[in-house]
Formats: sequence, C-alpha cells, structure tokens
Amino acid sequence: MPPVSRLFHFCPRRRLNRPGEEAPMQNPKLQVLANTVNKLLHRDAYGPLRKILSKRHPAELAYFFRDFTPVDRKRLFENCGDDQVKAAVLGEIDLPVAVELISNQDPADAVHILNNMDSDDLADLLEELDEDLKEKLLKLFKDEDQEAVEELMAYDASTAGGIMNPSFLALPQTATAGEAVDFLQNSSEDYAITFYIYVINSAEKLSGVVSLRQLVTCKPSTTLRELMTPEVISVPVSMDQEEVAEIVQRYGFLAVPVVDDTNRMVGVVTVDDVIEVIREEATEDIFKMSGAGQDIEYFQDSFSERFRPRFTSIFFPLLTGVTSSLILAFRRPFFTDASGRNIFFLLMIPILLVLSSAIANQSGSLMVRGIALGRVKWAHFIEVFRRETAMSLMLGLLFGLFAFGFAMIPIFTRNGSASLQVVFPMFVGLTVFFSMLFAGVVGACLPLVFKRMNLDPASAAGSILSGLVEVFTILLYVFLISWA
Amino acid sequence: MPPVSRLFHFCPRRRLNRPGEEAPMQNPKLQVLANTVNKLLHRDAYGPLRKILSKRHPAELAYFFRDFTPVDRKRLFENCGDDQVKAAVLGEIDLPVAVELISNQDPADAVHILNNMDSDDLADLLEELDEDLKEKLLKLFKDEDQEAVEELMAYDASTAGGIMNPSFLALPQTATAGEAVDFLQNSSEDYAITFYIYVINSAEKLSGVVSLRQLVTCKPSTTLRELMTPEVISVPVSMDQEEVAEIVQRYGFLAVPVVDDTNRMVGVVTVDDVIEVIREEATEDIFKMSGAGQDIEYFQDSFSERFRPRFTSIFFPLLTGVTSSLILAFRRPFFTDASGRNIFFLLMIPILLVLSSAIANQSGSLMVRGIALGRVKWAHFIEVFRRETAMSLMLGLLFGLFAFGFAMIPIFTRNGSASLQVVFPMFVGLTVFFSMLFAGVVGACLPLVFKRMNLDPASAAGSILSGLVEVFTILLYVFLISWA
Repeated sequence: MPPVSRLFHFCPRRRLNRPGEEAPMQNPKLQVLANTVNKLLHRDAYGPLRKILSKRHPAELAYFFRDFTPVDRKRLFENCGDDQVKAAVLGEIDLPVAVELISNQDPADAVHILNNMDSDDLADLLEELDEDLKEKLLKLFKDEDQEAVEELMAYDASTAGGIMNPSFLALPQTATAGEAVDFLQNSSEDYAITFYIYVINSAEKLSGVVSLRQLVTCKPSTTLRELMTPEVISVPVSMDQEEVAEIVQRYGFLAVPVVDDTNRMVGVVTVDDVIEVIREEATEDIFKMSGAGQDIEYFQDSFSERFRPRFTSIFFPLLTGVTSSLILAFRRPFFTDASGRNIFFLLMIPILLVLSSAIANQSGSLMVRGIALGRVKWAHFIEVFRRETAMSLMLGLLFGLFAFGFAMIPIFTRNGSASLQVVFPMFVGLTVFFSMLFAGVVGACLPLVFKRMNLDPASAAGSILSGLVEVFTILLYVFLISWA
Repeated sequence: MPPVSRLFHFCPRRRLNRPGEEAPMQNPKLQVLANTVNKLLHRDAYGPLRKILSKRHPAELAYFFRDFTPVDRKRLFENCGDDQVKAAVLGEIDLPVAVELISNQDPADAVHILNNMDSDDLADLLEELDEDLKEKLLKLFKDEDQEAVEELMAYDASTAGGIMNPSFLALPQTATAGEAVDFLQNSSEDYAITFYIYVINSAEKLSGVVSLRQLVTCKPSTTLRELMTPEVISVPVSMDQEEVAEIVQRYGFLAVPVVDDTNRMVGVVTVDDVIEVIREEATEDIFKMSGAGQDIEYFQDSFSERFRPRFTSIFFPLLTGVTSSLILAFRRPFFTDASGRNIFFLLMIPILLVLSSAIANQSGSLMVRGIALGRVKWAHFIEVFRRETAMSLMLGLLFGLFAFGFAMIPIFTRNGSASLQVVFPMFVGLTVFFSMLFAGVVGACLPLVFKRMNLDPASAAGSILSGLVEVFTILLYVFLISWA
C-alpha cells in the first residue's frame, strides 16, 4: 500500500536560529542595531549592511522596517537576503508595510518571494493588495497554489478559517508508524517542528491524532489506527477566532485542527496565531472603550486613516455634552433672575469637559497599548508629539467651530449684551480648541514620559490624565471669560 | 558512558484527550453541563456525578468550580477523580479557589495531591497559602521537591523565574541520538509532548538545542553535539515577564529556556504561560486606566477586597472635581451679582460629573474584560447586578457624604438663604449618591446586555456608557434642585 493517501505539510515558521546566527536581541539592543542599519543604508554601504542583516532572525529584520521611511524600506528589503528570507520578513512585519514592499516589486519577482510564504500570511497579504495587482499575482501562481490561496481568502478573517494554516501533516490510518517515520526522514521539506500528526480515514475525515513521540516509541509495524488518540478536539472552520483562542488556551494546545461541515480536515490553527488573536482582541477592546479607532499600527496609517475613527467617536460624547448643557440651559430661569449677568457661561461646562476628556482618552489609550505591544518607544517622542499635535489641532478646530455655533443658540445668550452674542461663543470655541489640543498632546506624551521614568504608562492614561485635562479646561475657560 | 549526566523532565500539561474522553465543549455546552453537575451534587448522586466528571478534561472540570459555593466546591473536588486529576484541576482553576480547596484538605492528603502538580503552579499556590499551612506542607514534601519549590518561590512572580517550569529535558552533548531516543522510549514519565530537547555541556551550561524530529531522522550514532543548534535563544531568570512574552512571540517559540547568570539552564517558559502573561498584562492595563483594581477574579474576591481598589482610585478624580468646582466658586462674583439666586448650584457640576463617570468606568471595564476572558456570562446577570448594586451603594454613600460636606463650604453657600445652607448640600449629596448608584449598576449591566444582543460589550462600556451617565446625572441634579 502507498504510505500516504494524501499529504499536506504543516510547517510553522522557523522556530530556531540557524547555526551561526547570533543570540536574540532584546529591545534596546535592537534599537541600537536599527540605528546602525540606518547609517549604513544612508552611506550606501550595502556590503557591511548585508553582512549584518544575514546574521539576524527574520523577526528582527521585520523590526527594522517599522521606523524607516518608505524609500529606505525598499532599499533595506532588497538587501535583506534571498527570497526565502524576504518571505519570512513579509510574514512578520505589519500588513501595510508588507503591502507597500510587495507593490514596489516587479510582479515576477514578487511571485518568487510570495511562493515562499505561509499560505495564511499570503492570503492576508493578497487581500490587502490593490485589485489589479492581486489579479496579476494570482495568475502567476501555480494552479494548485492559486486555488489554495483563493479558498483561504474566502473565509471571514476573524474565524478559524481566516487564521488557520491550510498546510499540515495528515496521514491515513492504515499507514504504519515505520512508514510515517520513513516519510518524515525522506521528506524534502525542512520542517522545523512537527508536533502533532493528524490521522485521516479513507474519506479524508479527521479520525485521530498521533504525537511524534508516540510515533518513535512504538513498534514500527503498529498502524496509526492502533496508535492514534481518537475523538481529537477540533474546531469548525466558521468558529469565531476569539472562541478558537479560548479553546486553545483552555486545553493548553499547541495547535488545533480545523474541520469543515463534513469533518474533513482543512487546516490547523497554531498557538502563535492564537497569541496574535488574544493581543488583537485586547487592543480592540481598549480602543473601542476609548473610541481611539481599531488599529495599533500607529506609525503606518496615514493621517486621514487615523482621523476618521477618532473624529466619529467624539460624536456621541458631543451629543451627551450638548444634551447636558441644554438641560441646564432650559432650567436657566431657575438659576438666576434678570440681573444675573454671566450665568450662561456655566451652562457650557458639561460640553467642555466631555470634549476634552474624549480626546484625552483616545490618545492615552493609543499610547498605552502601543507601548505595551512594543511599537511606541521613547525614541518616538518627537514623532508622537508631532502626530498628536496635528491630530488634536484638527479635531480641536472642528469641534471648536461646532461649540462656537452651539453657544450662539439663543437660550444660552438671549439675556447677554449685544457684544457678548459673539464674544461668549468665541470664548467657548477657543476653550474647546485649546483644551482639546492640550488633552490630545498630553494624553499621548504622558504615558511615554511615565514609561521613561519607569512608572506605569497605564496609570498615567487613567484618572491622572483626565484629572489634568479637566482642571486645565476649567482654568482656561475661567481665564478666557474673565476678559468678557 | 552514561546516557545522561543530569536529567530533568519537562512535562507540560496534558495536551490531548485521553482515548475515550469526549470531544471538547464550547462555552454554552459547558454551562449546561455545569447545571447538571450542580443538580447531581444537590441530590448527593455521587455515582452518576463521578461518571460524568471522569469523561471530562481537567480544564473543563476547573471551569465548573468557578460558579459554585465553597461547600459545593469542596464536595465536587472530592469527587472529581484521583490525585492526578485533582492536581491537574488545581493547576487550571483560579488561585483563590485552589487555595480554598487545599486549605480544606487534611495536610497529608493535600501533599499527595500537590506532589502531582507542576512545580511552577505549585509554587504559585503555596505562596498564597496561610504561613502555617505552607510550612506544614513544605515539611511533608520530599527533600529535593521542597528545595525545588522553595527555590522557585524565591523568584519575583513577574519575572522569567516566576513563570518558568523548573522541570525540563536536558541531555549531555556527548550523548548520541540513539541513546536519547532510547531514553525517551524507556522513560516511565508519560510526557504528552517533548518539543525541544536541550543540550548541556559538562558544566551543565546550556550549549544547544535539538528538536525531536532531528533526533529521529539522523543516524543513531550521531552525537547531540554534532546535531544540535548552538547559540540557542535563552532568557535570563530575572527578565521581566512582559519582555519574555515579547521574545517568545517575536520568534514564534513554543518554549524558551531560562538561564542563570552563569548560563546554567534553570527552567523553561512555555507558550501557554506566555499566553497567560499577555492576557494578564492587557487586563492590568485596562483596569489601571479605569481604576477598577488589578484582578479579574471577579466572583472570587470578597467585597472588601474589591472595595478598596475601587474606593481609592476614585480619590484622584475626586480631587480634580473638587479643584474644578473650587476654581469656579472663586470666580463666582464674576458670574453673578448679589441678586443671582441659585447660581452656586452650577458650580458643583464638575464634581458631580467626575464622580459618576469614575464609577461607570470601573464597572464597565470589569465587565468588558470579564466577558472577554469568558469569566462573566449572561447567566451571571443577577449576581453581577447584586454585586454592583452593593458596591455602588457603598461608594455612593461615602462619596455622597463627602459631597454633602464639600457643598457646605461657605464659598459655595454664603449668599444663599439660611434654609439652603443644609438643603443645597443635601441635594448635592443625593445627586452623587444616586448618580453613582446608577452609573455603577448600568456600567456593569450594559456590557452584559450588549453581549446578549450580540453587540460588542466594549463599545457599550465606552462613550455610550459615559454619555448615559452624564445625562442622567445632570437630569437628576436639575430635578432634585427644582425642589429647592
């Protein structure tokens, strides 16, 4: 009988340094090396550059790409190694950078690199590409690869199908342990590790699992059917990624097989994908709670990509601030008689506080999460300051204009003098503008400063930040209106 | 030569179902089974109970313990299997429950169970026990075990040393592949999986690593020295757990060896510990940002354990609210002339808004994280409602009393009529009390309701929640003072 009826290989990313590679680097050292790489790149010293890069792990190479300009990134990519290394780097870096690098390649070269990628990473990457380029590249793939990748792209990205690797090792239950070991020994694929060998029946349905250790510690004539653990735990291809992560974690799995409706095995989800999901979901929760958008790729997204979610998520706080101020305004007759001069100033306080704390929350959470995920560091201080200043200026301007208009509503002003009809709304608008600017910039810088001082960035972004912002807003407002 | 100079075994938790075990359960099904277990327990139907429990994975058994009362937990633990199963369950459940269960055992029985635990879990558990009990149990261990556990307890819990497993497989570099395989085949330990075999030199220093696959696919006479990958990536025992997690994730490791100052290998950190660290750190960040405390063991902690962090973390918001209100009060002459009757009511708005949104943030974040980690479900609605009502009543009462006193400061009241000297502060105190009660309860229930409606709980806990709370606070205040 043939040793295997159908064979998939399951080859997780290289997990060990190659002989001769150096020890891994911790973050500060990586940062130093990134500076060296940058210098060599600007001196066009490609020889020494290649020598340095050849010793580093693809995960470390990927790290360098984050802080460089697109032009430098392109040159760095060209010098970082052969197609296999390039593919490994693409699998490790942030998706938008990978898209940028591939889009800058000649399609024929690009396909050579992409052919070396894990198909799950490849599917994620292709989905982000420009439609034309995607079509062009897909056509250049071998037929079976094209089919596999297109199948993978059909799954919802947040399900088991979306995070699974469609290549895995599956052997028929009629194969013997000896045949399986022979197969492993003669396989030309350089698997780094194969932890589980899945067993399928003649209908290609998942029927059991064998560990590599079981395989080598039994008599070679034992069939996999005798050896295997039946009733293997699997997840359906449509299961939500969060639930997959929970199952992998609950049972302490290294990988879990993914099956379709008919129990045919279609892929595996490995523990490193699960770690990614857990981090993603935590980030998503933090950002949703603070209305900071969805993505952590802080330095990759363009201004408008970052602006939209932050702008729209201030709408609801704005609405409630407006409502609160209106409630007070409608009760205004109660608070004062005809001679109460400037009382309407006070009615604006809810909307002022709400707008400034909304933007503080956003930038604070962005920084805390960026720092926790190792994407934002003290070295980025100037860049963060510049970006948050631009963002807060824009948001402050828009919401300041709105507040200016809002404060013109007669119920707030009708008892004021004629000159105050413009002066008062102007002060309100200016307060919103400056307090949002302050809140956005301080919200971004404070966690970085805390981190630098070895304090906890997360506690900076909590009540300390909103407290500072609140007191600043009130002080500023009082200071401005004292000119009225 | 002897095949191994020093041998540790590295035995991660069982990763596969035993033959005959049933398929794993998704959350809803587990909940149904938990109900069945509860019923059988209350009917004293121990026979059927044991039969049901024997088929389940320790991780699933651990799940049942969460929602039961201490008395039921004790009985369930007695019936959940042999010492090995009990040890596995203890390794999976929340620490406070494990402490409770072990403290209720006879020390001699407890030692038998503890002897079956992974030493890293064991060290964590012992550290939480009552000093007397800990001493007593430590004395009952075998000498080498006692030494190993005490060594482990000496490491800071948040470093590589604190999360590592001190048992691992290490073979001398002079051993041959054949000897290593023989060793594996004859070892009485039932490892589920051994993914990496670490190689040590004659001074017991880490000198390389061999994968199981390399071992079985080479000539048996090859020595490990020839076979191994030198320059293996390792982490120092004192490295912060967050950095260890980042390295494991960056390189996609399943396990990373931990070494002391002299490069002697002392343990391994496995990927499941890393997942735990990532989830813990995300939770910590969310809670610090909202001042909700540190721990996610929502249903395990007593009222006072949960109360203290929530009480103290409202202090800073209180301070800033007080400051803002005082700033307005000092500018009071500006806002009105002598006849402006009730203006001081408006000066309290900052402190009112700050207190109610502080508590809303706390309970909202607790729920969002609890739901994300699968610890809080719709079935807990009543319990959550009860707990948050108690908590908010207490916090509302204390801060309401404070606000009552604060509003009595002459600068707020001196122009008011005599009767208002008490009536006004009373309204302020009542507003704080009711708005904090509302905010705390709604903050906890809204994410659960959102989850139930298949909406995102995190977006409920963000601006929707603070918006509702803010408008409620202003409405309530205006309603109350209209009686003045």
